[in-house]
Amino acid sequence: MSTSAPPAALTIAGSDSGGGAGIQADLKTFAALGIWGTSVVTAVTAQNTREVLGVSMVPEAIVTLQIKAVLEDFPIRAIKTGMLGSAGMIRTVAKVIPPSIPLVLDPVMVATSGSRLLDEDATAVLLCTLIPRATVVTPNIPEALILSGMKHITTIPEMKEAGRTILDLGPDYVVVTGGHLPGDEAVDILVGPDTEMMLKSPKYPYQVHGSGCCFSAAMAGYLAHDCSVDLAFSKAKGFMDGAIQGAVVSKSGHYSVRPG
Amino acid sequence: MSTSAPPAALTIAGSDSGGGAGIQADLKTFAALGIWGTSVVTAVTAQNTREVLGVSMVPEAIVTLQIKAVLEDFPIRAIKTGMLGSAGMIRTVAKVIPPSIPLVLDPVMVATSGSRLLDEDATAVLLCTLIPRATVVTPNIPEALILSGMKHITTIPEMKEAGRTILDLGPDYVVVTGGHLPGDEAVDILVGPDTEMMLKSPKYPYQVHGSGCCFSAAMAGYLAHDCSVDLAFSKAKGFMDGAIQGAVVSKSGHYSVRPG
Repeated sequence: MSTSAPPAALTIAGSDSGGGAGIQADLKTFAALGIWGTSVVTAVTAQNTREVLGVSMVPEAIVTLQIKAVLEDFPIRAIKTGMLGSAGMIRTVAKVIPPSIPLVLDPVMVATSGSRLLDEDATAVLLCTLIPRATVVTPNIPEALILSGMKHITTIPEMKEAGRTILDLGPDYVVVTGGHLPGDEAVDILVGPDTEMMLKSPKYPYQVHGSGCCFSAAMAGYLAHDCSVDLAFSKAKGFMDGAIQGAVVSKSGHYSVRPG
Repeated sequence: MSTSAPPAALTIAGSDSGGGAGIQADLKTFAALGIWGTSVVTAVTAQNTREVLGVSMVPEAIVTLQIKAVLEDFPIRAIKTGMLGSAGMIRTVAKVIPPSIPLVLDPVMVATSGSRLLDEDATAVLLCTLIPRATVVTPNIPEALILSGMKHITTIPEMKEAGRTILDLGPDYVVVTGGHLPGDEAVDILVGPDTEMMLKSPKYPYQVHGSGCCFSAAMAGYLAHDCSVDLAFSKAKGFMDGAIQGAVVSKSGHYSVRPG
């Protein structure tokens, strides 16, 4: 038996019954990185790789108690947020997470399958609470469009511009993931106050369910291991390549990441 | 990328924010056994290794939709149920899980930390719906006392008697896990129509959070790999020994299983 508490990380996100995204993908990712994973469920989704059949939001008071239970008992070294779902939930989370713990914010707004996962009025609350407090914000192209207010993002210079615009909202770093851009390569860009870093990998012919969750959880996992943000970014990109190469197909023919 | 769906299993249980028990322990166990894990959340608990701070039941209609979403999209070869929490939830689950899929029923009634996790009136419903339909029921000693109606279980012959009494309620097999008995060994007993099997392992000096979840998930995982119940039992017992030897300690000094 281990006699000291292992490094731990926390995901605050929705549950995906199919196991490919949400806290399930995050916990698999933490486990693969040797991190004790804890999870605060914000919403229970009835979901598979093809569609979202239903969503039940967890009461905000229970979300607060879950965060309290986790922080009391585990040495949390990084937090990742995914699906928060509503303005009230965003405010609740912003109120109770300690400012001293690095935060990776995945601004989940739309599922890979197309279903809307964040109330429209909640975006404004995200912009003035959690985003300025985040260590890293990790939008994909559709999310970067909403957060930056840009009309289109179709080139690498536009991805960088979106990253810089979102950086002005107050987080320490922004990663724009470019899997939605046309081309043979998946280009991800990190921007920070004195940093700009671009990483490329081969693009796979299918959309892969859970890839956004897995990437932001990997960033949080590496931060929990005391990596710098630059290093966490490049390691998370490498980790994602493996999780996508190992992706598994469901009965309906859609792929899910397989972290670790 | 894999072009065929991997073998999959389903856990229907509560979420443990601390990650040591509930669907979190089950999904780690499935992953360690090479099974694609899916999960239907029945309750969101605000919990750590020491205490349960709060519980929010998921609406039964959302539980039904989660089961539907999973069964539609994944080749589920075994189901495990854990915390169901109420009579209504037990009826809901009994109504929608297909009779053709092997079912491991962990009759979760009390958390390791002592909190009651099943309404008292729900036990009667469990006895006349899911227990007769189960492939294996896996009570520990406190649960075996409730299910068998016996006054005390303090010896191996009494464990066997409890197993036989519960077998008469209709499941195909019963495993009584004896970790709560005094002595240096953890004795588990499988009883079936033509079977009686006893396995022993060294007992650890601490109660280990999540051990009941992990054991029943391992049984389900091996059934999903087409093992017989006898073989699943002995393999699950070996798996548990590893998960307990690798147990990790939290800040409050309590241990959690570490499957895989």
